[in-house]
Amino acid sequence: VHISKALFRSSAVLSGDALDMCDSFSRRHLGPNDEDGKAMLKAIGFDNFESMVKSTVPAQILTQTELQLDEPLTESEAIQSIKSMADKNKVMKSFIGQGYYDTIVPPVILRNMLENPGWYTAYTPYQAEISQGRLEMLLNFQTLVCDLTGLSMAVASLLDESTAAAEAMQMCFALKGKRGKNNKFFVSNDLHPQTIGLLETRAGVIGIELVFGNHSDADFTEGNYCGAIVQYPNTYGSVESPGESYKSFTDRAHESGAMVIAATDLMALTKLAAPSTWGADIAIGSAQRFGVPMGFGGPHAGFLATSDAYSRKMPGRIIGVTIDSEGKPCLRMAMQTREQHIRRDKATSNICTAQALLANMAAAYAIYHGPDGLKSIAGRIHALARVAHREIEKAGFTMAQDPFFDTFTIDVSSKGMTASQVQAGAEAVGANVRIIDDNTVGLSMGEGITRDDLKMLLAGAFGIVNPDVSADASLTEVDPSVARQGEILEHPIFRQHHSETQMLRYLKALENRDLALNHSMISLGSCTMKLNATSEMVPVTWPTFCNIHPFAPTNQVQGYHELIKDLNEDLAEITGFAAVSAQPNSGATGEYAGLLTIMKYLESKGEGHRNVCLIPKSAHGTNPASAAMAGMKVVVVDNDKEGNIDVVDLKKKIDKHRDNLAAFMVTYPSTFGVFEEGIIEIMDAVHEAGGQVYMDGANMNAQVGLTSPGLIGADVCHLNLHKTFCIPHGGGGPGVGSIGVAAHLAPFLPGHVVGQEASGDLCGSDLCVPKKEGAVAGAPFGSAAILPISWMYIKMNGTEGLKKATQYAILNANYMAARLNGAYDVLFVGKNGQCAHEFILDLRPLKASTGVTEEDVAKRLQDYGFHSPTMSWPVAGTLMIEPTESEDLAELDRFCDAMLAIRSEIDDIGSGKIKLEDSPLRNAPHTMEVIMNEKWDRPYTREVAAYPAPWIRANKFWPTCGRVDNVYGDRNLVCTCPPLEAYMDDDEVKEVA
Amino acid sequence: VHISKALFRSSAVLSGDALDMCDSFSRRHLGPNDEDGKAMLKAIGFDNFESMVKSTVPAQILTQTELQLDEPLTESEAIQSIKSMADKNKVMKSFIGQGYYDTIVPPVILRNMLENPGWYTAYTPYQAEISQGRLEMLLNFQTLVCDLTGLSMAVASLLDESTAAAEAMQMCFALKGKRGKNNKFFVSNDLHPQTIGLLETRAGVIGIELVFGNHSDADFTEGNYCGAIVQYPNTYGSVESPGESYKSFTDRAHESGAMVIAATDLMALTKLAAPSTWGADIAIGSAQRFGVPMGFGGPHAGFLATSDAYSRKMPGRIIGVTIDSEGKPCLRMAMQTREQHIRRDKATSNICTAQALLANMAAAYAIYHGPDGLKSIAGRIHALARVAHREIEKAGFTMAQDPFFDTFTIDVSSKGMTASQVQAGAEAVGANVRIIDDNTVGLSMGEGITRDDLKMLLAGAFGIVNPDVSADASLTEVDPSVARQGEILEHPIFRQHHSETQMLRYLKALENRDLALNHSMISLGSCTMKLNATSEMVPVTWPTFCNIHPFAPTNQVQGYHELIKDLNEDLAEITGFAAVSAQPNSGATGEYAGLLTIMKYLESKGEGHRNVCLIPKSAHGTNPASAAMAGMKVVVVDNDKEGNIDVVDLKKKIDKHRDNLAAFMVTYPSTFGVFEEGIIEIMDAVHEAGGQVYMDGANMNAQVGLTSPGLIGADVCHLNLHKTFCIPHGGGGPGVGSIGVAAHLAPFLPGHVVGQEASGDLCGSDLCVPKKEGAVAGAPFGSAAILPISWMYIKMNGTEGLKKATQYAILNANYMAARLNGAYDVLFVGKNGQCAHEFILDLRPLKASTGVTEEDVAKRLQDYGFHSPTMSWPVAGTLMIEPTESEDLAELDRFCDAMLAIRSEIDDIGSGKIKLEDSPLRNAPHTMEVIMNEKWDRPYTREVAAYPAPWIRANKFWPTCGRVDNVYGDRNLVCTCPPLEAYMDDDEVKEVA
Ligand SMILES: Cc1ncc(COP(=O)(O)O)c(C=O)c1O
Ligand SMILES: Cc1ncc(COP(=O)(O)O)c(C=O)c1O
Ligand SMILES: O=C([O-])O
Repeated sequence: VHISKALFRSSAVLSGDALDMCDSFSRRHLGPNDEDGKAMLKAIGFDNFESMVKSTVPAQILTQTELQLDEPLTESEAIQSIKSMADKNKVMKSFIGQGYYDTIVPPVILRNMLENPGWYTAYTPYQAEISQGRLEMLLNFQTLVCDLTGLSMAVASLLDESTAAAEAMQMCFALKGKRGKNNKFFVSNDLHPQTIGLLETRAGVIGIELVFGNHSDADFTEGNYCGAIVQYPNTYGSVESPGESYKSFTDRAHESGAMVIAATDLMALTKLAAPSTWGADIAIGSAQRFGVPMGFGGPHAGFLATSDAYSRKMPGRIIGVTIDSEGKPCLRMAMQTREQHIRRDKATSNICTAQALLANMAAAYAIYHGPDGLKSIAGRIHALARVAHREIEKAGFTMAQDPFFDTFTIDVSSKGMTASQVQAGAEAVGANVRIIDDNTVGLSMGEGITRDDLKMLLAGAFGIVNPDVSADASLTEVDPSVARQGEILEHPIFRQHHSETQMLRYLKALENRDLALNHSMISLGSCTMKLNATSEMVPVTWPTFCNIHPFAPTNQVQGYHELIKDLNEDLAEITGFAAVSAQPNSGATGEYAGLLTIMKYLESKGEGHRNVCLIPKSAHGTNPASAAMAGMKVVVVDNDKEGNIDVVDLKKKIDKHRDNLAAFMVTYPSTFGVFEEGIIEIMDAVHEAGGQVYMDGANMNAQVGLTSPGLIGADVCHLNLHKTFCIPHGGGGPGVGSIGVAAHLAPFLPGHVVGQEASGDLCGSDLCVPKKEGAVAGAPFGSAAILPISWMYIKMNGTEGLKKATQYAILNANYMAARLNGAYDVLFVGKNGQCAHEFILDLRPLKASTGVTEEDVAKRLQDYGFHSPTMSWPVAGTLMIEPTESEDLAELDRFCDAMLAIRSEIDDIGSGKIKLEDSPLRNAPHTMEVIMNEKWDRPYTREVAAYPAPWIRANKFWPTCGRVDNVYGDRNLVCTCPPLEAYMDDDEVKEVA
Repeated sequence: VHISKALFRSSAVLSGDALDMCDSFSRRHLGPNDEDGKAMLKAIGFDNFESMVKSTVPAQILTQTELQLDEPLTESEAIQSIKSMADKNKVMKSFIGQGYYDTIVPPVILRNMLENPGWYTAYTPYQAEISQGRLEMLLNFQTLVCDLTGLSMAVASLLDESTAAAEAMQMCFALKGKRGKNNKFFVSNDLHPQTIGLLETRAGVIGIELVFGNHSDADFTEGNYCGAIVQYPNTYGSVESPGESYKSFTDRAHESGAMVIAATDLMALTKLAAPSTWGADIAIGSAQRFGVPMGFGGPHAGFLATSDAYSRKMPGRIIGVTIDSEGKPCLRMAMQTREQHIRRDKATSNICTAQALLANMAAAYAIYHGPDGLKSIAGRIHALARVAHREIEKAGFTMAQDPFFDTFTIDVSSKGMTASQVQAGAEAVGANVRIIDDNTVGLSMGEGITRDDLKMLLAGAFGIVNPDVSADASLTEVDPSVARQGEILEHPIFRQHHSETQMLRYLKALENRDLALNHSMISLGSCTMKLNATSEMVPVTWPTFCNIHPFAPTNQVQGYHELIKDLNEDLAEITGFAAVSAQPNSGATGEYAGLLTIMKYLESKGEGHRNVCLIPKSAHGTNPASAAMAGMKVVVVDNDKEGNIDVVDLKKKIDKHRDNLAAFMVTYPSTFGVFEEGIIEIMDAVHEAGGQVYMDGANMNAQVGLTSPGLIGADVCHLNLHKTFCIPHGGGGPGVGSIGVAAHLAPFLPGHVVGQEASGDLCGSDLCVPKKEGAVAGAPFGSAAILPISWMYIKMNGTEGLKKATQYAILNANYMAARLNGAYDVLFVGKNGQCAHEFILDLRPLKASTGVTEEDVAKRLQDYGFHSPTMSWPVAGTLMIEPTESEDLAELDRFCDAMLAIRSEIDDIGSGKIKLEDSPLRNAPHTMEVIMNEKWDRPYTREVAAYPAPWIRANKFWPTCGRVDNVYGDRNLVCTCPPLEAYMDDDEVKEVA
């Protein structure tokens, strides 16, 4: 169903009529108004956008046609039209389970986190001093995960449960496996099917051999296993696995040298013994049911915990405790500056964008409910399951009899029914059950299920007319054989904020510590911190998008299907591709999915031996990491000194690997912020040698409407919808890494075990067929719940708005580059001197002459009220600035003024006026505490320290701590909440005691 | 329809079952948990709540029964049940007009103001230094109103258009009238009917004689008119009034010494000549259509502007510019400390709570759209009306032909139709028109009307099948004879924030300047700053509550009727009364309405001569003001030195006025925070003399569930739903002042011109009959859109939760009083030494010995991160503290610690350790700027200044300016935005220039 303009737009006549609605969006999205735009163009030497674009984008790739998109809808029109789509989704009570559960989002968290730009517009906490709020909440998340799993180390979220399982598998392989030896990995048959699907995708290509079985069948005696994964409770609900206890299974695996992974559930763990008690080395799962809506599959936070021994092999971001320049405790991302955990071609993981916002929501949920609250919720969920089990059994059905927490199965053939009949009965009363096979139905309980829901289900699905839906307290207790011993969540943070007022203030206090887009520009190069408009965000929290299970029957999710199909079609048009998949839930996952698509295509042509992936030196770390995970051999291509791909070197390497060339990965415009002129020549060379071109679309914000990956000649490309297409960064996720492909690749896009609902069915054309293989996320459409954001953005801008956004993105960057050039060296520009939508300032010459580092400048910018641009990436010793189109002229000027003022502070060091160690640069950022101190012995004033520019007076942002000490923290890795005393002065500790 | 528990609660078995939902609300609402509650009881010498209550509340009034309310719903149950109610409202496109128009709330404003606790939980900006954000936005509102009306002075909102008209009428009377002379007031027949209704209520009782007529009929020659009011454009849409131009009418009125009021419309004024151009002295109206949903009638901001000459007679709050202790410009409420504008018994207005939040939204709407945006919106609205007029005329209907802006009338009998038929046709296609009389229909256009809406209307209501709904630009221009000349909104504030990013940051920057409940406790005595829970707020912005016209047909508003009826019934139960009206949109309006009810009752008994109202000296200023407005004679009753009503004096005055005694007004517990023992004796004495007892229910938070006005013996009482029943204060409004009455008064509750929809139909019993007279608000149910908040609060708490709230409110106050007693004198307690839910600290002895004033303490508290308690009310030189039940023990302790620390700072002055002028007290509050200054020559450290307590380090709140200079500001009254340069240092001005 193509959604045509006519359906939604209140317009019977041509646009331009006086009755057109006034709430057009494009002008709200763009920072500069027309007048400012003209002045800025003039300032950089152009009469109009056309001439600027011509001078910036190579002629061969400049499109000659306009995008064919619907006419732009105004904000109210777009809201109305997406509403009518959302209303086609049927909100049912879900008893499906399988990793996704009905949950209640506490309203105070919904409104003050998920719907609050203070939380959702922040970036990954690269600048720790102005990110202590979300760092604290993420640390709370890690503490929660550690406490419930019983393991001591956890990461600050992974993408979902299934990818977390795959990450854990790769950890085992990295720690215990050797290619060709110990490469077996045991997979319990009772794992969630979607997790099995994902392990299958991930294992084969890197040489892991999956062995499926029941626990009792697993023969570890040959010692050739690196690991094993079991689900606890398993996908059918049982807490004891068939034939063997978790404990004895784990003992056997350990004896043979294999590690054991528990796929588990945080809610169940509030009542069940922690996996650590039976020896699990790693625990993974999803925190969805801790107050994050199902959202048709995502986004939610995956989790992973392990013991100290394995902490340094953990994938993704880890929040750790360290000290600041004053020796006070503070937080920052551990063991990494900018994603150094991505080990490029030696990578076992490529995760970058994670699920920070959702992890933060889950942590807030745990804090708000506290240990007692969580145990009540879990106890009630258990009681619901016990009552259902009791009543269905009473009615004569044959039931599974293992101890369970919230899920059990029913052999419905025992009463002459089929599973489909049961589901039909459930659906008729507004509920869904899980169909396991023709004769077997699964039921799972979630927090949101009411007594009436249960009654309705029992009646509708099982014909039980007058069930007894009462339960005494004993039904809240799990079987003693599996029950947890001892307290949960003893850290004070889980015992303080249980009234709404307390919670509100805690959330606010944390929010106030973080610099987000609601304060000032965040010019992180390559991150595209543009406006995340309210009207884009509004639909995300509608129940018709939130309360949908990813495996709900197709007829109930027509709104989602329509949305996804329409969005994919628009993205196909924008990228110049034939088909699009929305399954990857991050850019890095998109890369991985795209490379797999290429590999499968090559295989289909009988060229499965091709496995070399050429990647420029300048590429983002995720590129080689993804290639490695796709089982490819990474060969690095040099950059020339203009920053372009060294075409000579490229051709040399193409020649060398001609027979095995699978792909070339290229970011365009380059990670240096330049539209490389040689791009067509490069494309041709790769294709000529039989290779495919993978384009990293992180910089798509410079392409939309002016050129496209398809036009340039790429075969596949991922889009970070959380960059160009306005999904907010959420403080480090969520994201969506949709991939677009040329027609020949379309049949090889990711599938999903649920089959006909898989993305194959819905990619942007009729070229793809539904299939079950190749999933890269737990849910068929990945983080479906945030796709409305990008849909709204595209529909409200239309052809002209999108092109304008690109033009302004380029204009803003070039305007800033022009203002800063001279004071700083602008590294790398196109042949006419223009950058694309971002540019790099080289601080190395200044460092050489004064000792001032890029970090000094980054931290000093905090004193000026700004978030630093991207530091030391893609080139060490530099800052990369990307303003985006949403920043207005005054803000650009303020930022430039700050940078110029900093330059003169650098000069004061150069001229010997002030010593580096004594300078405001080296001592930045300046906290309130430092300023307040009577012992001010610096050679500059307090005003210079904290009020270095006039605009700050009206709206000062204070860094919460002094410069963080990364080395200290990495040496003493602590990634759970330290006791409160750690934050106090000795005096205060005494006071408390 | 009584809403029974069974309808909504997911509960087939008794509560206490393990399947009960876990999200019960009461524990979220209360600050202290059970354990803390017990410890606190012990600390003040009680074993349990029962003994505390017995010791606090006089035995004769302590209830013996529990409230009969529905079982409490959990948060999710309550949301679900109010949703099912809301869904009974039918959202139609409204062409009704008559003061309420379809508008589009810009999403960035909706989410970041109306749905943001940072904006909605603040109180009236009594403490200017920590309120500069909303003070600035209110000043923007005043500037907007002044600019569009062409008058130089405006107030910071009134309650609605109709009450604004009445306030303006009283201004005229105060300025030009003398009782018995110049007491005529001309009212144009073409005023909105609801405004006429309200003028009728207000005029008679104070001796104003309304003369209705057409402009040309008005004969001012005898000079006995104090004023005249005309509507521009008038209620039928015409911009020229029948028979005479506004200008010549005004000239005639002026000649005779009468003032002229223009009831006008801000949207129209962006295109039409300002009322000042034709001589209006006062302009009033509603800012609803500037982005505030219709909400079935309210809340919205009324406005009032006048010229410099009359500024000191303006009613309500005025924001003015002044300077702070450093001589820098800043804002504060002008000409008043705590509501000194209320002139008690000489009052012409009693307005206290206004519509700050809605005024702020309207100002933000104007800022976001800017002059060009507003003119486009207005132009489009005009074009919609022109197209409709054109097409309907083309179809052969007889039409009004005067110049119009957005409204015109149609004689539908000209095509053989009746108005009801037209409405029926409109309703069938989802629209409403205005029925003016059997033959006449009115149509009004609003921003939210789309081209399709118009087409549908023309087809459905008028049978016009293929209308031409196109319009060229010429149709956006109003008739040149009435068009506005020159630019609008030239102040820079209206020209800066047009992108969403800009607007978001501006709103955030302002929010950051204001201390609201999301930061720390606001213990303003008598204001009841309790939790405004998210789940209470969520329904308020549902379209099914927002997008309903107050005069929509009854069948479309069944959800609202059900809600109001149910809430009124619960409030009747809680207050012990027979009937409740929700029409008054503030506490003060409730007082006025209640007193009128009494007067009408007395009249009905033939005792219309009774007009004396006894009021204790300690009463809130609104009490005598309301009595004066109700035409009563105020006689003041003394308080004894224990703070109680001096019963001897009371009886003396009863005796003296026995024959004319109408009413006695009493606040209970008293404004001194004490449950007076003598209350029953007082009641009896008044009743015995034939008087009625009016209870001011501002302190209802100490009564709910323990006693009630009805039980105590009052005849009528208003409830500030914005205090006890959780409607947030919004920075100074909205509010609801529901009144409850005993059975004999029920027939005299306010009516409304729309008749059968009037509150009479829906008061809490069958005792009242619908009637048209006596309206006290423009809409029949006042601020209906915020009633869901109180409904949710009551339903989620139930009998036990409400009683607990009261107990904790009393406990918290007594706990604090106990901690502070000794260090400060606690003034007035009950006979056993307990206060009620609030208490007064007497600072006069300390002032006498040290010179430290209550203002010093109030400002110093800001340095400690706290909002001051109520200052110098009800007793000069004191602070009155009301913690409410929502504050937890740790917060209460922090506040007490701050007060104790301040006490020792006072002692340092007393002991001569530091001089008053040099002390942190006198120099409070301390701003960042001051701290930053190198020239720190105070005898205390910067840390003492700004970090005086340990908890501040984690969460410092900075006052934006130094102590405001009230005298300076009142001497130089400026109540529109000053030019930007005023905020800059001389240096900066030069820089800019
Ligand atoms: C050039 C480039 N490629 C890939 C990525 C990875 O995307 P994601 O963080 O969504 O996994 C990024 C992220 O910033 C990037 O900048
Ligand atoms: C005792 C008392 N009476 C009346 C009022 C007036 O109520 P409102 O501000 O809602 O008009 C107040 C307001 O603070 C009050 O405290
Ligand atoms: O998040 C990034 O590494 O760009």
